Amino acid sequence: MSQNIYDRSDFFAGYSELHRSVHGLAGAPEWSSVKALLPDLAGKRIVDLGCGFGWFSRWARENGASHVLGLDLSQNMLARAAAETQDEAITYRRVDLEDVELPAASFDFAYSSLAFHYIVDFARLMRTIHRALVPGARFVFSIEHPIYMAPALPAWLADAEGRKTWPVNHYALEGPRVTDWLANGVVKQHRTMATTLNTLIDTGFTIRHIAEWAPSAEQIAARPDLGELLERPMLLLMAAQR
Amino acid sequence: MSQNIYDRSDFFAGYSELHRSVHGLAGAPEWSSVKALLPDLAGKRIVDLGCGFGWFSRWARENGASHVLGLDLSQNMLARAAAETQDEAITYRRVDLEDVELPAASFDFAYSSLAFHYIVDFARLMRTIHRALVPGARFVFSIEHPIYMAPALPAWLADAEGRKTWPVNHYALEGPRVTDWLANGVVKQHRTMATTLNTLIDTGFTIRHIAEWAPSAEQIAARPDLGELLERPMLLLMAAQR
Repeated sequence: MSQNIYDRSDFFAGYSELHRSVHGLAGAPEWSSVKALLPDLAGKRIVDLGCGFGWFSRWARENGASHVLGLDLSQNMLARAAAETQDEAITYRRVDLEDVELPAASFDFAYSSLAFHYIVDFARLMRTIHRALVPGARFVFSIEHPIYMAPALPAWLADAEGRKTWPVNHYALEGPRVTDWLANGVVKQHRTMATTLNTLIDTGFTIRHIAEWAPSAEQIAARPDLGELLERPMLLLMAAQR
Repeated sequence: MSQNIYDRSDFFAGYSELHRSVHGLAGAPEWSSVKALLPDLAGKRIVDLGCGFGWFSRWARENGASHVLGLDLSQNMLARAAAETQDEAITYRRVDLEDVELPAASFDFAYSSLAFHYIVDFARLMRTIHRALVPGARFVFSIEHPIYMAPALPAWLADAEGRKTWPVNHYALEGPRVTDWLANGVVKQHRTMATTLNTLIDTGFTIRHIAEWAPSAEQIAARPDLGELLERPMLLLMAAQR
């Protein structure tokens, strides 16, 4: 079973205060870039893997989806999702994405935001999603970028001339990374860019677009702290097709 | 016109002494990984973009290619390639890949080793190659990895606990990088992973496989200096299909 970090009270308290937890999709600076990758959702049956508070599940319904299945491991997150949702066409279900089962050819679009970097068996999950989608269906997800994930000690340094510098090492050494984001001992799974792409391809997906999300000049003007994302990416967005 | 660094005497003298220049394909540690991406070459018409000394062009003929067109900008390299080639089915031609023209649908396979990171207009070159290949043809190339290319100051640092660390910054800032490899003032073009992949996809290629080349345990045992490539990749290999 995956680490259920979102149900640890220290982590959940911190997570609930994040800009994106308070303001939803519009509070996530990458949202406009994610949205650009989405197909027309009208009439589509959607699975939202790692649905959290249900922001995307509800947005998808507001944008025409016929049904959304939101999956998450966290009771905390699903409880808030359920409390904030009045829509019989959204179903939330508690599952561990490590061993989730989905019915074959039952979804027209799959979506996941910042969940897959917790998954150990990425290849199994990709096979499950591939099988659950109808032919031609789109699949859009975001994960933490492997440049961001790789380092043994993920903290900014200065280079020899004093520039803000991200300390990449251990890149080829895939596996767990233990960090102290919001709480101590959060376990994430580092995979190289090649492994992520080749797993999708070998499963039968076609890669349609990738984005190493970087903020716009307008976003940096409004939030100067985002400027560091020009130095190294933090998020990887991917659009594929079954 | 591209910088013709291989025809500068200081650079060429240094380049000619590299292991890969003396020992050919077998002297390039990534060769076995590149070879794993190649299709059966029997009967294929091949274009070798940035053919250098002609090692691959000759190997392709030994492995059944019906004709190879080797293209390079460097008179030094083409002179040695011609001197070492006795094969009427290999044609070497001096061109700048920035403005090369190729006849439509006239090749069954396109190959390039460590040339495209010198190219400013990568999208134009991809369109030219796509048009020159027959439908279904494979395309395999290597470039310097964007993690290796990005830094303002590409030199190893120690992280806060003393580990060997690659100083990534300026990743999202694409464009020229001036380094002092073999000679001063060598100009290469940094592009993000996303730009390289999306340019291929938008041109009409399907991504088949990528490799962020890392040495095997046997290679590191034989050449301990290669171990640093586990910390961060230096080469990106890509296999695509028209």
